[in-house]
Amino acid sequence: MPRLNPAPEFDVATWLNTPQPITLASLAGKVVLIEAFQMLCPGCVEHGLPQAARVRAAFPTSEVAVIGLHTVFEHHEAQGTVAALKAFLHEYRIGFPVGIDQPSVHGAAPRTMTAYQMQGTPTLILIDRLGRLRAQHFGHVTDLRLGAEIQALIGETVPAPATAPATTTLDAVCTQEGCTVPSL
Amino acid sequence: MPRLNPAPEFDVATWLNTPQPITLASLAGKVVLIEAFQMLCPGCVEHGLPQAARVRAAFPTSEVAVIGLHTVFEHHEAQGTVAALKAFLHEYRIGFPVGIDQPSVHGAAPRTMTAYQMQGTPTLILIDRLGRLRAQHFGHVTDLRLGAEIQALIGETVPAPATAPATTTLDAVCTQEGCTVPSL
Amino acid sequence: MPRLNPAPEFDVATWLNTPQPITLASLAGKVVLIEAFQMLCPGCVEHGLPQAARVRAAFPTSEVAVIGLHTVFEHHEAQGTVAALKAFLHEYRIGFPVGIDQPSVHGAAPRTMTAYQMQGTPTLILIDRLGRLRAQHFGHVTDLRLGAEIQALIGETVPAPATAPATTTLDAVCTQEGCTVPSL
Amino acid sequence: MPRLNPAPEFDVATWLNTPQPITLASLAGKVVLIEAFQMLCPGCVEHGLPQAARVRAAFPTSEVAVIGLHTVFEHHEAQGTVAALKAFLHEYRIGFPVGIDQPSVHGAAPRTMTAYQMQGTPTLILIDRLGRLRAQHFGHVTDLRLGAEIQALIGETVPAPATAPATTTLDAVCTQEGCTVPSL
Repeated sequence: MPRLNPAPEFDVATWLNTPQPITLASLAGKVVLIEAFQMLCPGCVEHGLPQAARVRAAFPTSEVAVIGLHTVFEHHEAQGTVAALKAFLHEYRIGFPVGIDQPSVHGAAPRTMTAYQMQGTPTLILIDRLGRLRAQHFGHVTDLRLGAEIQALIGETVPAPATAPATTTLDAVCTQEGCTVPSL
Repeated sequence: MPRLNPAPEFDVATWLNTPQPITLASLAGKVVLIEAFQMLCPGCVEHGLPQAARVRAAFPTSEVAVIGLHTVFEHHEAQGTVAALKAFLHEYRIGFPVGIDQPSVHGAAPRTMTAYQMQGTPTLILIDRLGRLRAQHFGHVTDLRLGAEIQALIGETVPAPATAPATTTLDAVCTQEGCTVPSL
Repeated sequence: MPRLNPAPEFDVATWLNTPQPITLASLAGKVVLIEAFQMLCPGCVEHGLPQAARVRAAFPTSEVAVIGLHTVFEHHEAQGTVAALKAFLHEYRIGFPVGIDQPSVHGAAPRTMTAYQMQGTPTLILIDRLGRLRAQHFGHVTDLRLGAEIQALIGETVPAPATAPATTTLDAVCTQEGCTVPSL
Repeated sequence: MPRLNPAPEFDVATWLNTPQPITLASLAGKVVLIEAFQMLCPGCVEHGLPQAARVRAAFPTSEVAVIGLHTVFEHHEAQGTVAALKAFLHEYRIGFPVGIDQPSVHGAAPRTMTAYQMQGTPTLILIDRLGRLRAQHFGHVTDLRLGAEIQALIGETVPAPATAPATTTLDAVCTQEGCTVPSL
C-alpha cells in the first residue's frame, strides 16, 4: 500500500537557464532538489541558493537535478519581472534552471508554492526517482544532513518499496533567515 | 596652500530612510561615510552594506554620518525603481539614509557617481569635517583599516591644517566582489 | 571474490572520553568515522575536529561511531603527554572517545597512523558496518560530500555485496590546512 | 594633574621570536598592543591571535608594536613549557615577539597578568606612546573598534595632554570565548 505522494508538477510562467520548459515528469529517474526562493530574501541569497549550487557541484547531474523556483509572494513590483530575475541570476552567477512560479490571482502565493503548501522562502524540496515528495525544509538545513538525505534517495532502487514510510518533514519553526508566507 | 578638494555635493533623485533630503553641506562638522552600492551587486550585499551598518553602530552619529548611495549603472530595469530599492532596504533591514543617485542621460553612470569618478560598486568614500574628500575605496577595505581611517578624521581639529597632504586613494584593482563601471 | 580490505585495528596507548578501550571489532555493525588529528595542527582544530563533532550530532550513535585518534608525528614534547591532550579536549569541549596512537620507536609516525598509511593530519577515515576501510581523506572534505558518503555506508545491507568495488580514496594533494608526514 | 597610569613593565621568563628581551621602556614612542593568551584557549586561537596578526599587518611597525604574552594560569603541565609554546607558534605561524609571563608561586596567575589585574584570556591591552595603559579588553573586541582605538593613540602628539581622562576599560562580562581567571 503506497504511502508516499507524488510531488505536485511545476506550474511555471517562464523558465530561465534552460532551452526548454522542465517538468517533473521529464526528470523521472533522477533525484530532484527544488530550491524555492525570492531574489530579495536575505536567507535565500546567503544560504539557500549557495547551498543549491554546492549540491549541483557535488553530485553528478545524471543522478541529481537542481532546479530553482522563484516563488514571489511579496514585493511583486520589485521581484515580479523577468528582467529583474534575469539580472539577479546573472550577477549571482546562478547557472541551474530557474522557473518563475505562476502568479496567483488576488496576490496569494504563487501556484506551485501553494500546491506544495510552502510556508515561505527559502524552502528546499527533495523528490525521489519515482517523482514522490520526500522532504521539504523551510529555512536552514545543514550540508551534512542534506548530503545524507540526497544520498539516501540516490541509493534507492527503482521501483522503490511501496511500503516505505513517508519521511516528508515540514519544519514548523520559522527562523530569522526565512520569509514566512503571511497567510499560513 | 590647500591641496584637499571639496567633495562633490549629492545629486540625488529620491531620498529614503530620511524625513528630508540630505546635503553634504548640512553634514559639515561631521565625518561622512558614503557607501555607494547597487542592490544586485553581490559584493555590496555581502560586504559593503554590512560594513556600513557596522560603522553606523560603532561610532556616535554625532561624529560620523553613514549615507547610502544607490548608484545604478547597469540592470536599470531591475534596480531602477524606487519600489525595488524600498523592498531591498526593508528586507535587508538597512536603516540609514539612502539616496538614489540621479540618473544620467544616455545610460551613462549616474551623476553623483560620475562626479566622484567612481569605478564601480561597492565604493566607500570618506569625507572630513570640512567637507573634503579624503578617501575613496573601490572594493574591499578591512574593518581594521577603515576603523583607523575614520578615527583619524574624527581626531582632526577644525579647521584642519590647510597643508595636510591629499590622501585620497583610488584603488586601481577591481576584485571579483565588485562591479566595475564598463566605460572606465 | 572480496576486494575490500578490513580496516587495521586500533593500536592505542591510552583512551580518553571512554570508560574502556575501544576496538573496531566491538564497533562491528556500525559505520565508523575516525578523525586522526594532532592538537597543534591548525587544520585539525579549525576544520577536522569541528566537522567530526557535527557528524556526531547529526547521526544517531546507534548507526555511526565517531572516534578521535591523536596521531602525534611531530612536536612530541609538546603534544605527546596525556595531560596535554586532556587539557586540549577539555578546552575544546570534545566529548567523543579519543585514542592516543601508539608511538613508534625512532620517531616514526605512530602505529595506527602507519598501518593506515596516513599522509598527515587531519585525516578522516570511514569504515563500513563490516569493518572494511571505505574512504580515507587527507585534508578538507566538504560536509555535503561527507554526509553523502556516510549515508551511503549507513544504507548498505549487511552482509554487503562482496563484489562491491573498492572506493578508498587517497587524496594526493596536501593542502595548506593539513600537516604532511615528512617521510611519505 | 596626570590621571593616566604607567603600564606595568613586562615580567617575562623567556622571550621567543625576538633576538633580545623586550621592555616597555624600549618601546617608548610607539603604540603597544599586548595580546595576552594561552595556547589552549579556543577564543585566543580563533579570535585574539589572528586579530593581533592583522593589526601587525595593517599598521607600520614604526608606529605600533604587537607583542604576545603567554599568560598560563591553568593546564600548566600542557602549556607551561617553552617547547610547547614554540611548537604552537611554529604551527600557527605567529611571527611577532611573544613573552612567557613569569610564573607565580602557589599556582596563582603569572606575574605580568597579575600586575595588569587581567581577568582571563584573551586580553588585549593598548599602551600609548608615553607608556601609559589606555585600554584593556577581556574577550572580543571588533576590528572596527580596535582600528579606531589604535589610530586614536597613533594620532596623539607627544607629550600628550596631562589632563586627558583615563579611558581604561575593563569589560566586566566574560564571554564564552574567553577563559576567566578563577580567583577574580
